[in-house]
Amino acid sequence: MRISEIGEFGLIERIRRRLGPPGEGVIVGIGDDVAVLRTGGDKYLLATCDIQVEGVHFIKERTTPYQLGRRAVAVNLSDIASVGGIPKNILVSLALPQETKVEYVDDLYRGMEEEASRYKVSIVGGNTARSPLLIVDLFLIGEIEPDFLLLRSGAREGDLVLVTGQLGDSAAGLALLLDPSLKVKEENERSVLEAHFTPIPRIEEGRAIAKSRAATAMIDISDGLAGDIAHICESSEVGVRILAEEIPISEATREVAKAAGKDPLDLALFGGEDYELLFTAPPEKAEDVALFVKRETGTPVTAIGEVLPADEGRALVKGDGRSVFLESGGWDHFLDTSAFPSRVKEVRWKRRS
Amino acid sequence: MRISEIGEFGLIERIRRRLGPPGEGVIVGIGDDVAVLRTGGDKYLLATCDIQVEGVHFIKERTTPYQLGRRAVAVNLSDIASVGGIPKNILVSLALPQETKVEYVDDLYRGMEEEASRYKVSIVGGNTARSPLLIVDLFLIGEIEPDFLLLRSGAREGDLVLVTGQLGDSAAGLALLLDPSLKVKEENERSVLEAHFTPIPRIEEGRAIAKSRAATAMIDISDGLAGDIAHICESSEVGVRILAEEIPISEATREVAKAAGKDPLDLALFGGEDYELLFTAPPEKAEDVALFVKRETGTPVTAIGEVLPADEGRALVKGDGRSVFLESGGWDHFLDTSAFPSRVKEVRWKRRS
Repeated sequence: MRISEIGEFGLIERIRRRLGPPGEGVIVGIGDDVAVLRTGGDKYLLATCDIQVEGVHFIKERTTPYQLGRRAVAVNLSDIASVGGIPKNILVSLALPQETKVEYVDDLYRGMEEEASRYKVSIVGGNTARSPLLIVDLFLIGEIEPDFLLLRSGAREGDLVLVTGQLGDSAAGLALLLDPSLKVKEENERSVLEAHFTPIPRIEEGRAIAKSRAATAMIDISDGLAGDIAHICESSEVGVRILAEEIPISEATREVAKAAGKDPLDLALFGGEDYELLFTAPPEKAEDVALFVKRETGTPVTAIGEVLPADEGRALVKGDGRSVFLESGGWDHFLDTSAFPSRVKEVRWKRRS
Repeated sequence: MRISEIGEFGLIERIRRRLGPPGEGVIVGIGDDVAVLRTGGDKYLLATCDIQVEGVHFIKERTTPYQLGRRAVAVNLSDIASVGGIPKNILVSLALPQETKVEYVDDLYRGMEEEASRYKVSIVGGNTARSPLLIVDLFLIGEIEPDFLLLRSGAREGDLVLVTGQLGDSAAGLALLLDPSLKVKEENERSVLEAHFTPIPRIEEGRAIAKSRAATAMIDISDGLAGDIAHICESSEVGVRILAEEIPISEATREVAKAAGKDPLDLALFGGEDYELLFTAPPEKAEDVALFVKRETGTPVTAIGEVLPADEGRALVKGDGRSVFLESGGWDHFLDTSAFPSRVKEVRWKRRS
């Protein structure tokens, strides 16, 4: 059997089962984006890694080393943000062809350092090796107060589902890169390309959400809203209803989608790499959390749905009121609507920015 | 300028200078094999990474996934051993082609898990990604009591230079792999191939050396004795004299060297990947450390030279009494012997096993 047959999450699940329950001192082990470890101190240690492989995660000719450096750091920071943690130190595992120019490495480090220093994170070591492909693998260590830790597994029936910022911009940027013939307003082009190349990790927002003590579960949106809400549903053993019209999508992404003949909703649901935070909170506290995040960071928070019992599955309510099954990787499978609640309840707290 | 022109250590030095002094809470940063970090607890946190790239660090057709898994863990453990630390947790960053068989990944994990569990280390997370080449990048977290920490930088003039186990076996194994026509005794073949594929990280030995509180500097031998003693000399600002005849070389390696028409000393000095520990200790304490390590772990320790003032450079005294400059990557540059002490002092404490 090849891994293409069981997919990334099938493989991770297989590894998790093979390794068995986590050992002593391991609060969260295999299967999450971040390992949470007990040390002697009063905070938990967080550890995560994310790799960028040439030709897979980036096209060398279309990405400057500076952009690559910033992006590599940002996606790792986002994993720490996703549990509400404080990032601290980075190890850089760099594998590169011998003919790489020293100036390329300089610019890569300039990008990494600039992104890291925005969050007071320092690069403390790593490893360099030879490789036919350029590989930037980052290992990020962070910490969190045990009381603030937010996992995927805490969502409860009745909670609202909330998201920071806007979704789909990164996918819109990628669409422009893949089809340079698409024409959109210059400022919109700049904004979605920037979202794609140098996403902003929501460290401050994650801390604010964690400190509010009101959120119940959290994840960062790396696989797309549809895939990441599925992770929360699986870990929390709940269902969800997302209201398509409440999903925050920028004017820029709408314009790109139109030029590309795509539904902007597709970009938001399945595009991924937005690195916004997706979290849940009881309805009576949700608005306070959103206001707190907005006040502390300036970033808007939008309520986009609510948590249902597990047996109600994952539903997306479209503008016309039809309810479709929200697949994690594509929502073309229309389900028998009788399997899902037909009553489209209004989300109790509406979006504001 | 290409990185092939400045080499690995030139590149690391350039990065180190670019990043400047380590930040708050960083005891040891860029340039060492292990980052040493202060956390809230009473121990320091250790963090290290080491990558295995297909075609560079291993030949996929000649290495079983089980061997690759064990080796990947072992070389990382060795970095923790090199400072006297206790390894704790591993993150596995795995990048692999889509057509990889699930059973291959199973065997890789079996190897990693087996090696890790020997040292009570648990795999707590990581990342999987697609890549045209198989890449196993491990991040290892450990800890150490501040009083036990051994760095490269503590060697003092007059100290003896000591090494655990034997040197050259891994290079002898590689020589057999590269030239299958070489004929040696079956047990010798097995022993050097094992040393090459599944080196033994000297965790217990590193702990014993650290706990003795007598050693002054330590490193693991990954680049070869010549290269790694140079690291100690540079970090400690000292010179060294190594006595060629005292370097412990196995009967197996001697036989392989003979069959290959090589000097066994070359394998020991420049072969690398032995993952033995190289350390320094004052002469009056050296024998006690060696006896303690032998008693605690069964591993022999050999005195192979002594630390000199920095201006005496790095010398290798050969069997005929001639003193040559010990280059880190090759010792074909014969130096004017007047630049080095002609008196070949006897090492005060002789090898024992």
